[in-house]
Amino acid sequence: MSEVQQALDYVRGNGERYLNELKDFLAIPSISTLDENKADVQRAAEWVAAQLRSMNMDNVQIMPTARHPVVYGEWLGAGKSAPTVMIYGHYDVQPVDPFELWTSDPFGAVVRGDYLFARGSSDMKGQVMASLKAVEAIVRTTGLPVNIKWLVEGEEEIGSEHLGEFIKNNKEMLASDFCLNPDAGMMGADKPTITTGLRGLAYFELKVYGPDKDLHSGLFGGTIHNPAQAMIELIAGMHDKNGKITLPGFYDKVRKLSKKEREEFKRLPVSNKELIAMTGVPALWGEPQFIPSERVGARPTLEINGMISGFTGQGAKTVLPAWAMAKISCRLVPDQNPEEVFKQMKAYLKKNAPKTIKWELTNLHNAGAAIVESDSAGVKALAKALKSVWGRQPYFKREGGSIGSVVLLQKYVGADSLLTGFGLPDDNVHSPNERLHLPTWYKGIEAFTHFFYNFK
Amino acid sequence: MSEVQQALDYVRGNGERYLNELKDFLAIPSISTLDENKADVQRAAEWVAAQLRSMNMDNVQIMPTARHPVVYGEWLGAGKSAPTVMIYGHYDVQPVDPFELWTSDPFGAVVRGDYLFARGSSDMKGQVMASLKAVEAIVRTTGLPVNIKWLVEGEEEIGSEHLGEFIKNNKEMLASDFCLNPDAGMMGADKPTITTGLRGLAYFELKVYGPDKDLHSGLFGGTIHNPAQAMIELIAGMHDKNGKITLPGFYDKVRKLSKKEREEFKRLPVSNKELIAMTGVPALWGEPQFIPSERVGARPTLEINGMISGFTGQGAKTVLPAWAMAKISCRLVPDQNPEEVFKQMKAYLKKNAPKTIKWELTNLHNAGAAIVESDSAGVKALAKALKSVWGRQPYFKREGGSIGSVVLLQKYVGADSLLTGFGLPDDNVHSPNERLHLPTWYKGIEAFTHFFYNFK
Repeated sequence: MSEVQQALDYVRGNGERYLNELKDFLAIPSISTLDENKADVQRAAEWVAAQLRSMNMDNVQIMPTARHPVVYGEWLGAGKSAPTVMIYGHYDVQPVDPFELWTSDPFGAVVRGDYLFARGSSDMKGQVMASLKAVEAIVRTTGLPVNIKWLVEGEEEIGSEHLGEFIKNNKEMLASDFCLNPDAGMMGADKPTITTGLRGLAYFELKVYGPDKDLHSGLFGGTIHNPAQAMIELIAGMHDKNGKITLPGFYDKVRKLSKKEREEFKRLPVSNKELIAMTGVPALWGEPQFIPSERVGARPTLEINGMISGFTGQGAKTVLPAWAMAKISCRLVPDQNPEEVFKQMKAYLKKNAPKTIKWELTNLHNAGAAIVESDSAGVKALAKALKSVWGRQPYFKREGGSIGSVVLLQKYVGADSLLTGFGLPDDNVHSPNERLHLPTWYKGIEAFTHFFYNFK
Repeated sequence: MSEVQQALDYVRGNGERYLNELKDFLAIPSISTLDENKADVQRAAEWVAAQLRSMNMDNVQIMPTARHPVVYGEWLGAGKSAPTVMIYGHYDVQPVDPFELWTSDPFGAVVRGDYLFARGSSDMKGQVMASLKAVEAIVRTTGLPVNIKWLVEGEEEIGSEHLGEFIKNNKEMLASDFCLNPDAGMMGADKPTITTGLRGLAYFELKVYGPDKDLHSGLFGGTIHNPAQAMIELIAGMHDKNGKITLPGFYDKVRKLSKKEREEFKRLPVSNKELIAMTGVPALWGEPQFIPSERVGARPTLEINGMISGFTGQGAKTVLPAWAMAKISCRLVPDQNPEEVFKQMKAYLKKNAPKTIKWELTNLHNAGAAIVESDSAGVKALAKALKSVWGRQPYFKREGGSIGSVVLLQKYVGADSLLTGFGLPDDNVHSPNERLHLPTWYKGIEAFTHFFYNFK
């Protein structure tokens, strides 16, 4: 029996236990953005460290950062001639609100049909488990043919705030040839995917202050500038009539798509009809000169992620609010720089904010956009592994999301990320009823098992 | 001793008990807009009815409407040759959020310095008590020189939703020569005021729907129209660059101010500096061709009273929200019609809403604007009463708020309202830490005591 076959047999013999362990992992509400969940985030880190120790990884550590810790572990027994593969993951998850839209407890994972429902099941505890369990199978059978280093962080959902400093401070420990990163998902259950580009992110909180307390809109309306109105006029002005973003200099560094890149986008199996069915919108929206996959993969956006002001309860309250707040984020593309976009946003506000209100802009987090080399040994080994399981060449695509680690590892370790994963587009990632397609997840464990043997 | 002097002596001898009774009234959280407070609203009605019975009013009833009841009571012993004065009040109050900004329990009235702090203290349980206690003093001493009818409703803070039907159905019972309405406040503790005009109100809730659930802003941003963005662009477009409201036909029926009216506005003791100090804004705002008191008294507005969408918690969540909601209201002036403004808002949305989202507009409530005759016997009796206590002629002004009963009583009973009151501009009405200036309140009780003797 070939080596990979021995490991695959182990995977198949342990599938039920793997699922139960994933459920345990998902029971920890490791919401990184909420202070009240700080202890849970720590508990999730300890859970990952225990997994690494149980499969005989060396030097397993829970390493503190200014907020949530990084879990590290390594096995370097394959020697200097073998490649060193970093495996990236994050054990933190998104908040669960709106909670009332969940069909079952977000932290009580349940299987319904082919799916496992829980916050983090797809993004990305399920993906972390796929890599852990592939490595476990190899360790328990043939032993690892490559060196590996684990980097599992707890701040991905808040923009990997302290990961940059961590990587910068631990360059030598983290030195690797490339990084396997299963946080990028696939285009469909029968469409294995390798992502070669990511958008960046610049995320802001804008607060606009009017009167020093809520006022009666009858007694003051007409003389006091309503901060909600002032704010929405400012934000509305951030797009022009054609949907173009008006921050000064915003498009200056946007890299133009080549003819070849546009052809690749056209080949991707994404139909407008499917997008409409998946989201329930009456019609798609966006820059008409680009197709949807280009708009998501290679065009920047400016988005309201949330906003609040005044009275939002039942019925009517005739209030002129004291303040208004909006969370605004820009998805960025090469070669935009999030720090520059923050400056552009500030410049826009300075120029356009009226003198009748006060405003405050906070830079909540930043991530650069990234493009990955698509014909490296790592990408080839990954593509071969995916083909072994799915029986077809993977799709190569550029993704609309941001993964902080990708830019940081390129910058400080010089390692490209191999972006893939087994999350599906309709997994309700960041939404209520997040789910993981279990048949695809099991295929994913097998694909990662193949992957580590593909360097021989 | 004159009759009025006897009654005034009674008032002065009972001041402490009056205050304690007001505290009891303020302890009832009669928030009319919240379903959870329905029983409290009923309890407040019963409290008022008990007051009326205790001062030997006849025919005291708690009369149901489709939501909150009206308290009625009468004393018609002065005979047909004496005038019949209706006394209007409302026993319901505004919600208390943002609760965290209150220094003390909104329903545990406490005196600090010259002020009594509680929700409803100024708007308008304190004013209701001023009229109750003036009448009590007269009843207990000389007897009433006029006929009176009490109309105390529980829906003023939600636009007097069912008061119109109630008044229409009880025209004969309510027949009166005019209505004393102390819900309009005064311009300063030394500035007794009679209000001769009120703005109307048209209050809407706008909901904009995008995708059928919250989406990941990275995976979908650029292809799916963000409903928060769509909504704020729609609302931003409701004002043009000069601050003019763009709803089609909005200004068509706005009555122009006469030269005389503008001169009256100019005489009002309102300074821009005071307005800025009172509200804490960096600068005033509004139509430059009108002074602030004109903008509040005689110009229409379109205001955001509240809005919410997406993630508004701590930190960052990269969500493309499923929906956005805004509460929008227009203050109206003669001769605008709130039903027509609802149609104008709908027409605006139909014309301007993009096809990439769905929207829904709900008409939450309406009130017409009103102008009151300023040289009637009622106004003269009230002006004389105020002058007796403050030693000066009252100011005659037009007010920015809306009082549903004023329009309804004009329409169905043919009775003009005598708008006055003892609330001050800095009482934090509709805001945290609402308060009542007690020295002014006691003067108010005395002024109302004078008032009823001024028809002889």
